[in-house]
Amino acid sequence: MLRVALFGAGRVGRIHATNAASNRQTDLVAIVDPFGSEAQDLARELGCAASTDPEAVLARADVDAVVIATPTNTHVTLMLAAVRAGKAVLCEKPIDLDIAKADEAIAEIERLGGRVMLAFNRRFDPASQELRRAIDTGEIGEIRQVIITSRDPAPPPRVYLQHSGGIFRDMTIHDFDMARFLLGEEPVEVMATASRLIDPDLAEIGDFDTVMVNLRTEFGRQCHINCCRAAAYGYDQRFEVFGSAGMLMNDNLRPTTVRRWSGAATDAREPLLNFFFERYTDAFRNEFEIFRTAVEAGTPMPVTARDGRQALRLADCALESALTGRAVRV
Amino acid sequence: MLRVALFGAGRVGRIHATNAASNRQTDLVAIVDPFGSEAQDLARELGCAASTDPEAVLARADVDAVVIATPTNTHVTLMLAAVRAGKAVLCEKPIDLDIAKADEAIAEIERLGGRVMLAFNRRFDPASQELRRAIDTGEIGEIRQVIITSRDPAPPPRVYLQHSGGIFRDMTIHDFDMARFLLGEEPVEVMATASRLIDPDLAEIGDFDTVMVNLRTEFGRQCHINCCRAAAYGYDQRFEVFGSAGMLMNDNLRPTTVRRWSGAATDAREPLLNFFFERYTDAFRNEFEIFRTAVEAGTPMPVTARDGRQALRLADCALESALTGRAVRV
Amino acid sequence: MLRVALFGAGRVGRIHATNAASNRQTDLVAIVDPFGSEAQDLARELGCAASTDPEAVLARADVDAVVIATPTNTHVTLMLAAVRAGKAVLCEKPIDLDIAKADEAIAEIERLGGRVMLAFNRRFDPASQELRRAIDTGEIGEIRQVIITSRDPAPPPRVYLQHSGGIFRDMTIHDFDMARFLLGEEPVEVMATASRLIDPDLAEIGDFDTVMVNLRTEFGRQCHINCCRAAAYGYDQRFEVFGSAGMLMNDNLRPTTVRRWSGAATDAREPLLNFFFERYTDAFRNEFEIFRTAVEAGTPMPVTARDGRQALRLADCALESALTGRAVRV
Amino acid sequence: MLRVALFGAGRVGRIHATNAASNRQTDLVAIVDPFGSEAQDLARELGCAASTDPEAVLARADVDAVVIATPTNTHVTLMLAAVRAGKAVLCEKPIDLDIAKADEAIAEIERLGGRVMLAFNRRFDPASQELRRAIDTGEIGEIRQVIITSRDPAPPPRVYLQHSGGIFRDMTIHDFDMARFLLGEEPVEVMATASRLIDPDLAEIGDFDTVMVNLRTEFGRQCHINCCRAAAYGYDQRFEVFGSAGMLMNDNLRPTTVRRWSGAATDAREPLLNFFFERYTDAFRNEFEIFRTAVEAGTPMPVTARDGRQALRLADCALESALTGRAVRV
Repeated sequence: MLRVALFGAGRVGRIHATNAASNRQTDLVAIVDPFGSEAQDLARELGCAASTDPEAVLARADVDAVVIATPTNTHVTLMLAAVRAGKAVLCEKPIDLDIAKADEAIAEIERLGGRVMLAFNRRFDPASQELRRAIDTGEIGEIRQVIITSRDPAPPPRVYLQHSGGIFRDMTIHDFDMARFLLGEEPVEVMATASRLIDPDLAEIGDFDTVMVNLRTEFGRQCHINCCRAAAYGYDQRFEVFGSAGMLMNDNLRPTTVRRWSGAATDAREPLLNFFFERYTDAFRNEFEIFRTAVEAGTPMPVTARDGRQALRLADCALESALTGRAVRV
Repeated sequence: MLRVALFGAGRVGRIHATNAASNRQTDLVAIVDPFGSEAQDLARELGCAASTDPEAVLARADVDAVVIATPTNTHVTLMLAAVRAGKAVLCEKPIDLDIAKADEAIAEIERLGGRVMLAFNRRFDPASQELRRAIDTGEIGEIRQVIITSRDPAPPPRVYLQHSGGIFRDMTIHDFDMARFLLGEEPVEVMATASRLIDPDLAEIGDFDTVMVNLRTEFGRQCHINCCRAAAYGYDQRFEVFGSAGMLMNDNLRPTTVRRWSGAATDAREPLLNFFFERYTDAFRNEFEIFRTAVEAGTPMPVTARDGRQALRLADCALESALTGRAVRV
Repeated sequence: MLRVALFGAGRVGRIHATNAASNRQTDLVAIVDPFGSEAQDLARELGCAASTDPEAVLARADVDAVVIATPTNTHVTLMLAAVRAGKAVLCEKPIDLDIAKADEAIAEIERLGGRVMLAFNRRFDPASQELRRAIDTGEIGEIRQVIITSRDPAPPPRVYLQHSGGIFRDMTIHDFDMARFLLGEEPVEVMATASRLIDPDLAEIGDFDTVMVNLRTEFGRQCHINCCRAAAYGYDQRFEVFGSAGMLMNDNLRPTTVRRWSGAATDAREPLLNFFFERYTDAFRNEFEIFRTAVEAGTPMPVTARDGRQALRLADCALESALTGRAVRV
Repeated sequence: MLRVALFGAGRVGRIHATNAASNRQTDLVAIVDPFGSEAQDLARELGCAASTDPEAVLARADVDAVVIATPTNTHVTLMLAAVRAGKAVLCEKPIDLDIAKADEAIAEIERLGGRVMLAFNRRFDPASQELRRAIDTGEIGEIRQVIITSRDPAPPPRVYLQHSGGIFRDMTIHDFDMARFLLGEEPVEVMATASRLIDPDLAEIGDFDTVMVNLRTEFGRQCHINCCRAAAYGYDQRFEVFGSAGMLMNDNLRPTTVRRWSGAATDAREPLLNFFFERYTDAFRNEFEIFRTAVEAGTPMPVTARDGRQALRLADCALESALTGRAVRV
């Protein structure tokens, strides 16, 4: 039985808390949030303690592991505090917006022998796992090209964007991680283009809403990522892996398999599951279970802080490439 | 070079005439229709002679074969006249509405050694051919069930229906032929249900607009056919063949492969090709070419007047079953 | 908080027990099975009591409702005992194999004012619910034809079949219920055909493995059902609802959305979820939750013992029709 | 009746010749090829004259238009000779491998008032036309991103590659044209990555086999193109157009709509139509008919030599970008 405390009672924190609470081999001990009322509501709902004091919770002997779902600028501090307190950590992405700070944190974690898993949930989606498995069995031969489509249903509020680190570090970072996961080889070069097609005023904060990135590995494998902060038809999440012996694709999820035929259109499928908490429900649940298993078995974390750092580095390179018009070496 | 005369310049006649005219190894010699103006228009368009005199055309030495696309009640007379004149015949379905008359005609054709192909065009659709080929290679093992969906976009005018012989003999007859083609074994029992869901006034002429038929072969294989005279989403033509080792299906055709994604629906395909002349363009062309090849090579006709008779017999059984509520032995 | 006891620790019982145990507003109190060890294993796993004594459990004041997943021939007895003990009942299908016994039981339940829900789980599948919802909003106009495809991956063992009541009462009964659910009008006539294509020896027990049934309502709406005890490609569960203004379909479920492209085939999807416990996971969970809600709110049961009786009646009619070759009035 | 001569009796020439010969409003007068035997075979088959003398054919008064399907390095010379002889021209892509030479040719064509259409056949595929039409009706709002997938079934022989101008000018040039066709706005910036994943020896001739290109327009719209000289699953030709109000996609073509279900895979579709002459049969036919119509009506050519030049310019930019690692201004 893994005893877990959750830090951060916001949108993503709620997902982790619910998964911990419904996992038969996990005991959700406490939910910590500086905004006490949110933690209290969630704690009451899930039948655990609420707290506004991270240090007190980290000091508890009956906490084996923590899930960090707080604002990005607190990730490193909390992660290190948890590691020093001997807790295993599942930390939300991105590890930080500053790669130097991320590097220092990783050095410290490794020095302390800390156990940290970075929460790139998409890797744990059943379709992603099946893609990886099929690649590993050699079904499509040698990978040549990976195409990642990643479009949000609607842009986040401006106040969120101001602290997000920009589209590459906040949104595309998931796709950079999936690129690494699917390519099976480190990208060494990044080329990016970035536009403001939804909201020209993003220029005020130096951000973009529509981007395309191409990655290249040493071997010459290629990966294309396209992102947009809004899609009229919903949350679009697709992967295509093209190899020497075949191709694999996944598709978006919908509430049911019902299809409609009328005079206007045939075989029309339902709207997409709207956003990440609906689309990646299974992924989040699998992620937590895999974290729990790794902690209890003492096996290596499937995604580490170094993976978080590497995705952040790709995001930095993409931003530099978009601003300079040059391919950037990773 | 096969020299062909067409009888009947109506809707289906036009399809055959165009296929004959564009077939590089066929010479369309004449178009015959009692309504002279239609034949003349079509003949002018395709660059051949027009006539209102069937006998004169059948007497021409430069005609090797005739295509009969006249009203049903003239099929037998024209077919026999053509056979007696030594012409090969491609005759539209149904062979006749009266099975006794069909039987007499077949006996006479066989006595004369006549060469008659019945125009069940759906057999020659590329998808039907592929289904048959896949069945023959044993891909799905032993056939257990066949499901045929056959819905027209809109009902024909009442004046057509009055002389049509009823839905089973006019419309479902195509599906009875496809059932025989796909099952590869004769049905021995027919059960049918018939309703008037579109036009209750069809009771006046003893006809129906919505029917379901189940067939059974001696071995116990089963076939379901559903027909409706109208479908809001267009001309629906689907086959499913379920065997001991797998299943095969075909799908409807659309103008292009474009799919649409909006907030209301995703992956929506185009409306169906509207009716048989658009849907079965390739089937009609293949049918004519196969007729031409068989005539010139002297090989057996792939669909004979006996096949036309058998489909008509199934239609008669279905009508009897619908009226009596009893399974009818074929 | 609904306090529930489960009767029957077999395959389906396990599904209900797990759903009850994981439902936050339900307390699974006891699992009852004459084979003590199975109940004990399951009870230990889910953290509740095990018993071999139905009467003792029915006498407990801390049990509000019972789920009956025992062999069919015990359904009526247990159901009535539970009703007399004042418990709400969720009972597996079929209500019984003998319609006279079912009718007596229903009369008694109604006399006692008992609360019984029959467990036709397929109604509660998300796709079934969406089909029903779309029909109710008038999306496809007036229903004309319903097509139900229902094929099991592999036949059950002979020992099961001997006590199953035959394919119509054991397997097709689900489809009869779905026909009623989707048609929205009672069938008044049944025509059926039945074959032994997998196992000719089923003749020894008077059973069949491959059947087709057509139903007709008073208004003339039609429904086709095809069933087979084995399908090489897995558990095939499809519904098609054709109306005056359009058509609705659902599709089978697969583990993920991954599609494969190779030289041999393109766009190939994964094998189907294998059987009912995987395919109808959500349906069983929704069913239990809807039962719980109805019991606690005191609202009418969405599926009653009468619905169970009606499906059984259709099964009896189908068997009679298959044996006599006559349409049977319901 | 348009009187046409064909130059070049190779693979693509044969397609154009067949389309001209079967077009009812076209008279195919002559086929010209320095290798006399190929032209003679084709001419005999299609019933027209053969020649090895381009000048003699251009001098014929009974030739209104010429189709140029000769090797690329003869395009400009033949095109200008034809224009000077007062003939309308349909010329295969690319216009030339040297953009300076293309510019000179265009200046001369325009000085002479010549009528030249460049044969970018993919624009005339029914799906491409439907995509363009749907964009024009505003169905998907403002275009944001276009994704073009373009993979050949197998690489051409080395001898072809040596004179091809390289993958960008030979293969991707079609995709550059489609990017312009779909974006509806000129790309102003090109970023490209190029690898040798199939044949490392392509380094000897400075060519690549696997490329990714991103384009950006002044407004900020983006287009991604991925190309590969080989795909195990066949000729892969897909377009995706993502706009502010929705998305459009087309799909590859297969011989029929048949789908297969087995224990290994479900819903598996047929292999793709293998290469351009099968995939783009309709496109080539439409292209010729549109050329004929424009010539006879005297209306503007739908694709001009300038369009050919612009695609070539994008190819040159892509090559420069791939070699320098810099975004290149068009």
